[in-house]
Amino acid sequence: MEQVFSCGTSPIVGLRFSLHPMADNFIEIIKGALREADTSNVWMHTDDVSTVMRGKQIHVFDTVRAIVLYAAKTGAHVAFNGTFSIGCPGDSAGDVFLEKDDILLNEPQIREIKQYVSSQFALYPMNNPDYMSVIYTEVARAKEHGVFNESMHYASGLHGDIHQVFTFLEESFTHARSDQYKHLVMTVNMSINSPSHKGDA
Amino acid sequence: MEQVFSCGTSPIVGLRFSLHPMADNFIEIIKGALREADTSNVWMHTDDVSTVMRGKQIHVFDTVRAIVLYAAKTGAHVAFNGTFSIGCPGDSAGDVFLEKDDILLNEPQIREIKQYVSSQFALYPMNNPDYMSVIYTEVARAKEHGVFNESMHYASGLHGDIHQVFTFLEESFTHARSDQYKHLVMTVNMSINSPSHKGDA
Ligand SMILES: [Ca+2]
Repeated sequence: MEQVFSCGTSPIVGLRFSLHPMADNFIEIIKGALREADTSNVWMHTDDVSTVMRGKQIHVFDTVRAIVLYAAKTGAHVAFNGTFSIGCPGDSAGDVFLEKDDILLNEPQIREIKQYVSSQFALYPMNNPDYMSVIYTEVARAKEHGVFNESMHYASGLHGDIHQVFTFLEESFTHARSDQYKHLVMTVNMSINSPSHKGDA
Repeated sequence: MEQVFSCGTSPIVGLRFSLHPMADNFIEIIKGALREADTSNVWMHTDDVSTVMRGKQIHVFDTVRAIVLYAAKTGAHVAFNGTFSIGCPGDSAGDVFLEKDDILLNEPQIREIKQYVSSQFALYPMNNPDYMSVIYTEVARAKEHGVFNESMHYASGLHGDIHQVFTFLEESFTHARSDQYKHLVMTVNMSINSPSHKGDA
Protein backbone atom coordinates (compact mmCIF):
# COMPACT_ATOMS: atom_id res chain seq x y z
CA MET A 1 0.00 0.00 0.00
CA GLU A 2 2.90 2.35 -0.76
CA GLN A 3 1.22 3.88 -3.80
CA VAL A 4 1.48 7.58 -4.45
CA PHE A 5 -1.84 9.19 -3.55
CA SER A 6 -2.24 10.67 -7.00
CA CYS A 7 -5.38 10.66 -9.04
CA GLY A 8 -5.51 7.94 -11.67
CA THR A 9 -5.76 9.19 -15.21
CA SER A 10 -6.19 5.78 -16.84
CA PRO A 11 -9.51 5.23 -18.60
CA ILE A 12 -9.34 1.57 -17.64
CA VAL A 13 -12.57 0.20 -16.19
CA GLY A 14 -12.48 -2.48 -13.54
CA LEU A 15 -15.13 -4.85 -12.34
CA ARG A 16 -14.82 -7.13 -9.34
CA PHE A 17 -17.67 -9.64 -9.41
CA SER A 18 -18.99 -12.97 -8.25
CA LEU A 19 -21.58 -15.23 -9.77
CA HIS A 20 -23.54 -17.38 -7.34
CA PRO A 21 -25.65 -20.16 -8.84
CA MET A 22 -27.80 -21.51 -6.03
CA ALA A 23 -27.49 -25.10 -7.18
CA ASP A 24 -25.40 -28.12 -6.25
CA ASN A 25 -23.70 -27.98 -9.67
CA PHE A 26 -22.56 -24.35 -9.16
CA ILE A 27 -19.00 -25.04 -10.32
CA GLU A 28 -20.22 -26.46 -13.63
CA ILE A 29 -22.50 -23.44 -14.18
CA ILE A 30 -19.77 -20.87 -13.42
CA LYS A 31 -17.10 -22.64 -15.48
CA GLY A 32 -19.54 -23.15 -18.36
CA ALA A 33 -20.45 -19.45 -18.44
CA LEU A 34 -16.79 -18.38 -18.36
CA ARG A 35 -15.98 -20.83 -21.16
CA GLU A 36 -18.92 -19.82 -23.36
CA ALA A 37 -18.24 -16.07 -23.09
CA ASP A 38 -15.45 -14.58 -25.20
CA THR A 39 -13.21 -12.99 -22.58
CA SER A 40 -10.31 -12.19 -24.89
CA ASN A 41 -10.85 -8.42 -24.81
CA VAL A 42 -10.39 -8.14 -21.03
CA TRP A 43 -7.83 -9.06 -18.42
CA MET A 44 -9.26 -11.40 -15.77
CA HIS A 45 -8.09 -12.95 -12.53
CA THR A 46 -10.10 -15.20 -10.21
CA ASP A 47 -9.46 -15.86 -6.51
CA ASP A 48 -11.49 -17.76 -3.91
CA VAL A 49 -13.95 -14.88 -3.35
CA SER A 50 -14.39 -13.06 -6.65
CA THR A 51 -13.10 -12.35 -10.14
CA VAL A 52 -11.59 -9.09 -11.32
CA MET A 53 -11.94 -7.96 -14.94
CA ARG A 54 -10.20 -4.95 -16.45
CA GLY A 55 -10.30 -3.30 -19.86
CA LYS A 56 -12.11 -0.80 -22.01
CA GLN A 57 -15.54 0.03 -20.64
CA ILE A 58 -17.38 -1.37 -23.66
CA HIS A 59 -15.59 -4.70 -23.38
CA VAL A 60 -16.04 -5.02 -19.63
CA PHE A 61 -19.80 -4.52 -20.02
CA ASP A 62 -19.99 -6.77 -23.09
CA THR A 63 -18.08 -9.57 -21.39
CA VAL A 64 -19.88 -9.51 -18.07
CA ARG A 65 -23.27 -9.38 -19.78
CA ALA A 66 -22.35 -12.54 -21.67
CA ILE A 67 -21.11 -14.34 -18.56
CA VAL A 68 -24.30 -13.51 -16.67
CA LEU A 69 -26.52 -14.54 -19.59
CA TYR A 70 -24.76 -17.86 -20.15
CA ALA A 71 -25.16 -18.69 -16.46
CA ALA A 72 -28.80 -17.56 -16.56
CA LYS A 73 -29.79 -19.71 -19.51
CA THR A 74 -29.01 -22.87 -17.55
CA GLY A 75 -32.26 -22.03 -15.72
CA ALA A 76 -30.56 -22.05 -12.33
CA HIS A 77 -31.31 -19.35 -9.79
CA VAL A 78 -28.21 -17.18 -10.14
CA ALA A 79 -27.13 -14.10 -8.20
CA PHE A 80 -24.61 -11.63 -9.60
CA ASN A 81 -22.71 -9.19 -7.39
CA GLY A 82 -20.38 -6.67 -8.98
CA THR A 83 -18.46 -3.49 -8.22
CA PHE A 84 -17.56 -1.38 -11.26
CA SER A 85 -14.76 1.13 -10.74
CA ILE A 86 -12.90 3.78 -12.72
CA GLY A 87 -10.38 6.45 -11.83
CA CYS A 88 -9.22 4.88 -8.59
CA PRO A 89 -6.12 6.77 -7.45
CA GLY A 90 -2.99 4.80 -8.26
CA ASP A 91 -4.89 2.50 -10.58
CA SER A 92 -2.92 2.80 -13.80
CA ALA A 93 -1.25 -0.60 -14.13
CA GLY A 94 -2.10 -3.27 -16.67
CA ASP A 95 -3.48 -0.99 -19.32
CA VAL A 96 -2.44 -3.18 -22.24
CA PHE A 97 -6.07 -4.19 -22.85
CA LEU A 98 -6.90 -0.57 -23.64
CA GLU A 99 -5.29 -1.15 -27.04
CA LYS A 100 -8.10 -3.48 -28.14
CA ASP A 101 -10.39 -2.28 -30.92
CA ASP A 102 -14.07 -1.47 -30.31
CA ILE A 103 -15.65 -4.53 -31.89
CA LEU A 104 -17.87 -6.29 -29.35
CA LEU A 105 -17.09 -9.99 -29.29
CA ASN A 106 -20.14 -11.20 -27.35
CA GLU A 107 -23.03 -8.93 -28.31
CA PRO A 108 -23.90 -10.69 -31.60
CA GLN A 109 -24.20 -14.05 -29.81
CA ILE A 110 -26.20 -12.85 -26.81
CA ARG A 111 -28.51 -10.15 -28.14
CA GLU A 112 -31.39 -12.55 -28.80
CA ILE A 113 -31.29 -14.30 -25.42
CA LYS A 114 -34.37 -13.21 -23.47
CA GLN A 115 -33.95 -12.87 -19.72
CA TYR A 116 -35.82 -11.04 -16.95
CA VAL A 117 -33.69 -9.62 -14.15
CA SER A 118 -34.42 -7.97 -10.83
CA SER A 119 -31.48 -5.80 -9.83
CA GLN A 120 -30.30 -3.18 -7.34
CA PHE A 121 -27.60 -0.62 -7.99
CA ALA A 122 -25.82 2.14 -6.09
CA LEU A 123 -23.42 4.87 -7.24
CA TYR A 124 -20.52 6.21 -5.20
CA PRO A 125 -19.02 9.28 -6.92
CA MET A 126 -15.91 9.75 -4.78
CA ASN A 127 -14.76 13.09 -3.40
CA ASN A 128 -17.61 14.92 -5.12
CA PRO A 129 -19.46 17.38 -2.86
CA ASP A 130 -22.44 17.21 -5.21
CA TYR A 131 -22.68 13.42 -5.21
CA MET A 132 -26.27 13.20 -4.03
CA SER A 133 -27.52 15.17 -7.03
CA VAL A 134 -25.46 12.91 -9.32
CA ILE A 135 -27.29 9.95 -7.78
CA TYR A 136 -30.73 11.55 -8.15
CA THR A 137 -29.99 12.34 -11.80
CA GLU A 138 -29.15 8.70 -12.45
CA VAL A 139 -32.28 7.47 -10.70
CA ALA A 140 -34.26 9.78 -13.01
CA ARG A 141 -32.36 8.23 -15.94
CA ALA A 142 -33.42 4.74 -14.81
CA LYS A 143 -37.03 5.92 -14.94
CA GLU A 144 -36.54 7.34 -18.45
CA HIS A 145 -35.07 4.00 -19.54
CA GLY A 146 -38.13 2.18 -18.18
CA VAL A 147 -36.03 -0.05 -15.93
CA PHE A 148 -36.69 1.61 -12.56
CA ASN A 149 -38.47 -0.65 -10.08
CA GLU A 150 -38.53 1.02 -6.67
CA SER A 151 -36.78 3.29 -4.19
CA MET A 152 -35.20 1.61 -1.20
CA HIS A 153 -32.61 2.16 1.48
CA TYR A 154 -28.97 2.14 0.25
CA ALA A 155 -29.73 1.24 -3.38
CA SER A 156 -32.26 1.66 -6.17
CA GLY A 157 -34.27 -1.19 -7.62
CA LEU A 158 -34.15 -1.91 -11.35
CA HIS A 159 -35.88 -4.63 -13.30
CA GLY A 160 -36.96 -5.81 -16.71
CA ASP A 161 -35.17 -7.12 -19.77
CA ILE A 162 -31.58 -7.79 -18.78
CA HIS A 163 -30.20 -6.13 -21.94
CA GLN A 164 -32.07 -2.92 -21.14
CA VAL A 165 -30.84 -3.04 -17.55
CA PHE A 166 -27.20 -3.49 -18.64
CA THR A 167 -27.57 -0.69 -21.22
CA PHE A 168 -28.85 1.64 -18.52
CA LEU A 169 -26.07 0.62 -16.10
CA GLU A 170 -23.36 1.34 -18.67
CA GLU A 171 -24.90 4.69 -19.56
CA SER A 172 -25.25 5.62 -15.90
CA PHE A 173 -21.65 4.63 -15.19
CA THR A 174 -20.58 6.97 -18.02
CA HIS A 175 -22.66 9.94 -16.86
CA ALA A 176 -22.05 9.77 -13.10
CA ARG A 177 -18.38 10.69 -13.55
CA SER A 178 -16.71 13.75 -15.02
CA ASP A 179 -13.28 15.14 -15.84
CA GLN A 180 -13.33 16.84 -12.46
CA TYR A 181 -14.60 13.80 -10.52
CA LYS A 182 -12.92 10.82 -12.14
CA HIS A 183 -13.22 8.22 -9.41
CA LEU A 184 -16.59 6.49 -9.60
CA VAL A 185 -17.77 3.22 -8.06
CA MET A 186 -21.03 1.47 -8.95
CA THR A 187 -22.29 -1.62 -7.16
CA VAL A 188 -24.77 -3.92 -8.89
CA ASN A 189 -26.66 -6.92 -7.58
CA MET A 190 -28.79 -9.07 -9.83
CA SER A 191 -31.15 -11.88 -9.09
CA ILE A 192 -32.04 -14.17 -11.98
CA ASN A 193 -34.54 -17.03 -12.22
CA SER A 194 -35.50 -16.42 -8.60
CA PRO A 195 -38.48 -18.23 -7.12
CA SER A 196 -39.35 -14.96 -5.35
CA HIS A 197 -39.59 -12.62 -8.35
CA LYS A 198 -42.99 -11.02 -8.46
CA GLY A 199 -42.67 -8.97 -11.62
CA ASP A 200 -41.39 -11.74 -13.86
CA ALA A 201 -41.70 -10.81 -17.54
CA MET B 1 -36.67 10.70 -4.64
CA GLU B 2 -38.07 13.99 -3.36
CA GLN B 3 -35.96 13.96 -0.21
CA VAL B 4 -34.34 17.10 1.07
CA PHE B 5 -30.60 16.98 0.28
CA SER B 6 -29.67 17.43 3.93
CA CYS B 7 -27.04 15.49 5.77
CA GLY B 8 -28.42 12.69 7.93
CA THR B 9 -27.68 13.03 11.59
CA SER B 10 -29.15 9.69 12.62
CA PRO B 11 -26.68 7.20 14.09
CA ILE B 12 -28.71 4.38 12.56
CA VAL B 13 -26.62 1.79 10.74
CA GLY B 14 -27.98 0.03 7.70
CA LEU B 15 -26.93 -3.13 5.98
CA ARG B 16 -28.24 -4.39 2.66
CA PHE B 17 -27.14 -7.97 2.19
CA SER B 18 -27.72 -11.26 0.44
CA LEU B 19 -26.78 -14.75 1.45
CA HIS B 20 -26.14 -17.18 -1.39
CA PRO B 21 -25.89 -20.85 -0.49
CA MET B 22 -24.62 -22.65 -3.57
CA ALA B 23 -26.84 -25.65 -3.03
CA ASP B 24 -30.17 -26.92 -4.33
CA ASN B 25 -31.70 -26.46 -0.87
CA PHE B 26 -30.72 -22.76 -0.70
CA ILE B 27 -34.18 -21.65 0.47
CA GLU B 28 -34.05 -24.02 3.44
CA ILE B 29 -30.54 -22.80 4.39
CA ILE B 30 -31.46 -19.09 4.18
CA LYS B 31 -34.75 -19.50 6.05
CA GLY B 32 -33.09 -21.68 8.69
CA ALA B 33 -30.38 -19.09 9.34
CA LEU B 34 -32.92 -16.27 9.63
CA ARG B 35 -35.03 -18.36 12.01
CA GLU B 36 -32.11 -19.41 14.19
CA ALA B 37 -30.72 -15.87 14.57
CA ASP B 38 -32.41 -13.55 17.04
CA THR B 39 -33.34 -10.61 14.84
CA SER B 40 -35.48 -8.79 17.38
CA ASN B 41 -33.03 -5.91 17.88
CA VAL B 42 -33.07 -4.81 14.23
CA TRP B 43 -35.62 -3.81 11.63
CA MET B 44 -35.50 -6.06 8.56
CA HIS B 45 -37.16 -6.19 5.17
CA THR B 46 -36.53 -8.75 2.42
CA ASP B 47 -37.25 -8.35 -1.30
CA ASP B 48 -36.41 -10.57 -4.27
CA VAL B 49 -32.76 -9.39 -4.47
CA SER B 50 -31.60 -8.65 -0.94
CA THR B 51 -32.48 -7.95 2.69
CA VAL B 52 -32.11 -4.63 4.46
CA MET B 53 -31.40 -4.49 8.19
CA ARG B 54 -31.34 -1.28 10.28
CA GLY B 55 -30.58 -0.54 13.89
CA LYS B 56 -27.81 0.24 16.33
CA GLN B 57 -24.39 -0.65 14.97
CA ILE B 58 -23.71 -3.29 17.64
CA HIS B 59 -26.98 -5.07 16.89
CA VAL B 60 -26.59 -4.95 13.11
CA PHE B 61 -23.15 -6.58 13.39
CA ASP B 62 -24.30 -9.08 16.04
CA THR B 63 -27.33 -10.11 13.99
CA VAL B 64 -25.61 -10.47 10.64
CA ARG B 65 -22.74 -12.42 12.19
CA ALA B 66 -25.29 -14.89 13.58
CA ILE B 67 -27.14 -15.21 10.28
CA VAL B 68 -23.90 -15.89 8.39
CA LEU B 69 -22.69 -18.41 10.99
CA TYR B 70 -25.96 -20.33 11.07
CA ALA B 71 -25.89 -20.62 7.28
CA ALA B 72 -22.20 -21.61 7.40
CA LYS B 73 -22.63 -24.41 9.91
CA THR B 74 -24.87 -26.30 7.48
CA GLY B 75 -21.58 -27.02 5.68
CA ALA B 76 -22.87 -25.60 2.40
CA HIS B 77 -20.70 -23.31 0.30
CA VAL B 78 -22.20 -19.93 1.16
CA ALA B 79 -21.39 -16.47 -0.19
CA PHE B 80 -22.31 -13.32 1.72
CA ASN B 81 -22.54 -9.93 0.05
CA GLY B 82 -23.26 -6.85 2.12
CA THR B 83 -23.19 -3.06 2.01
CA PHE B 84 -22.98 -1.33 5.39
CA SER B 85 -24.01 2.32 5.43
CA ILE B 86 -24.30 5.17 7.90
CA GLY B 87 -24.99 8.88 7.59
CA CYS B 88 -26.66 8.72 4.20
CA PRO B 89 -28.23 12.11 3.53
CA GLY B 90 -31.97 12.00 4.15
CA ASP B 91 -31.67 8.69 5.98
CA SER B 92 -33.36 9.43 9.28
CA ALA B 93 -36.59 7.44 9.13
CA GLY B 94 -37.41 4.34 11.14
CA ASP B 95 -35.13 5.08 14.07
CA VAL B 96 -37.30 3.30 16.64
CA PHE B 97 -34.78 0.45 16.89
CA LEU B 98 -32.20 2.90 18.24
CA GLU B 99 -34.03 2.68 21.56
CA LYS B 100 -32.92 -0.93 22.12
CA ASP B 101 -30.49 -1.59 24.96
CA ASP B 102 -26.90 -2.74 24.32
CA ILE B 103 -27.25 -6.40 25.28
CA LEU B 104 -26.15 -8.59 22.38
CA LEU B 105 -28.77 -11.26 21.75
CA ASN B 106 -26.72 -13.54 19.50
CA GLU B 107 -23.12 -13.34 20.68
CA PRO B 108 -23.47 -15.82 23.60
CA GLN B 109 -24.91 -18.49 21.25
CA ILE B 110 -22.43 -18.03 18.39
CA ARG B 111 -19.10 -17.20 20.04
CA GLU B 112 -17.97 -20.84 20.15
CA ILE B 113 -18.80 -21.66 16.53
CA LYS B 114 -15.52 -22.05 14.64
CA GLN B 115 -15.51 -20.94 11.02
CA TYR B 116 -12.82 -19.94 8.53
CA VAL B 117 -13.74 -17.16 6.10
CA SER B 118 -12.10 -15.62 3.07
CA SER B 119 -13.41 -12.10 2.59
CA GLN B 120 -12.92 -8.89 0.63
CA PHE B 121 -13.91 -5.43 1.82
CA ALA B 122 -13.88 -1.89 0.49
CA LEU B 123 -14.53 1.46 2.18
CA TYR B 124 -16.19 4.45 0.55
CA PRO B 125 -15.93 7.51 2.82
CA MET B 126 -18.22 9.90 0.94
CA ASN B 127 -17.38 13.53 0.18
CA ASN B 128 -14.09 13.26 2.05
CA PRO B 129 -11.11 14.74 0.15
CA ASP B 130 -8.78 12.64 2.28
CA TYR B 131 -10.59 9.34 1.65
CA MET B 132 -7.58 7.46 0.29
CA SER B 133 -5.62 7.96 3.50
CA VAL B 134 -8.66 6.76 5.48
CA ILE B 135 -8.59 3.59 3.38
CA TYR B 136 -4.86 3.06 3.84
CA THR B 137 -5.23 3.51 7.62
CA GLU B 138 -7.90 0.80 7.68
CA VAL B 139 -5.80 -1.60 5.61
CA ALA B 140 -3.01 -1.09 8.16
CA ARG B 141 -5.55 -1.86 10.89
CA ALA B 142 -6.45 -5.14 9.16
CA LYS B 143 -2.77 -6.07 9.30
CA GLU B 144 -2.61 -5.23 13.02
CA HIS B 145 -5.66 -7.42 13.60
CA GLY B 146 -3.95 -10.31 11.81
CA VAL B 147 -6.81 -10.69 9.32
CA PHE B 148 -5.22 -9.10 6.25
CA ASN B 149 -4.79 -11.50 3.34
CA GLU B 150 -3.68 -9.59 0.25
CA SER B 151 -3.86 -6.36 -1.71
CA MET B 152 -5.93 -6.43 -4.86
CA HIS B 153 -7.72 -4.16 -7.28
CA TYR B 154 -10.89 -2.49 -5.91
CA ALA B 155 -10.89 -4.24 -2.52
CA SER B 156 -8.64 -5.67 0.18
CA GLY B 157 -8.51 -9.35 1.04
CA LEU B 158 -9.17 -10.51 4.59
CA HIS B 159 -9.21 -14.02 5.98
CA GLY B 160 -9.07 -16.12 9.11
CA ASP B 161 -11.44 -16.78 11.98
CA ILE B 162 -14.81 -15.29 11.07
CA HIS B 163 -15.25 -13.71 14.52
CA GLN B 164 -11.93 -11.87 14.17
CA VAL B 165 -12.87 -10.73 10.68
CA PHE B 166 -16.24 -9.38 11.86
CA THR B 167 -14.58 -7.67 14.84
CA PHE B 168 -12.13 -5.94 12.50
CA LEU B 169 -14.92 -4.93 10.09
CA GLU B 170 -16.98 -3.34 12.86
CA GLU B 171 -13.95 -1.49 14.23
CA SER B 172 -12.97 -0.29 10.76
CA PHE B 173 -16.53 0.88 10.06
CA THR B 174 -16.34 2.92 13.30
CA HIS B 175 -12.96 4.50 12.55
CA ALA B 176 -13.39 5.32 8.86
CA ARG B 177 -16.05 7.93 9.61
CA SER B 178 -15.94 11.11 11.65
CA ASP B 179 -18.18 13.92 12.85
CA GLN B 180 -17.06 15.88 9.81
CA TYR B 181 -17.48 13.01 7.33
CA LYS B 182 -20.55 11.12 8.51
CA HIS B 183 -21.53 9.26 5.37
CA LEU B 184 -19.60 6.01 5.09
CA VAL B 185 -20.23 2.93 2.99
CA MET B 186 -18.43 -0.39 3.42
CA THR B 187 -18.90 -3.35 1.09
CA VAL B 188 -18.07 -6.85 2.29
CA ASN B 189 -17.99 -10.14 0.41
CA MET B 190 -17.42 -13.42 2.17
CA SER B 191 -16.86 -16.89 0.85
CA ILE B 192 -17.44 -19.73 3.29
CA ASN B 193 -16.84 -23.47 2.92
CA SER B 194 -15.54 -22.87 -0.59
CA PRO B 195 -13.91 -25.72 -2.47
CA SER B 196 -11.36 -23.15 -3.71
CA HIS B 197 -10.05 -21.82 -0.38
CA LYS B 198 -6.32 -22.31 -0.17
CA GLY B 199 -5.67 -20.93 3.33
CA ASP B 200 -8.32 -22.98 5.12
CA ALA B 201 -7.81 -22.94 8.89
CA1 LIG C 1 -35.39 -15.34 14.10
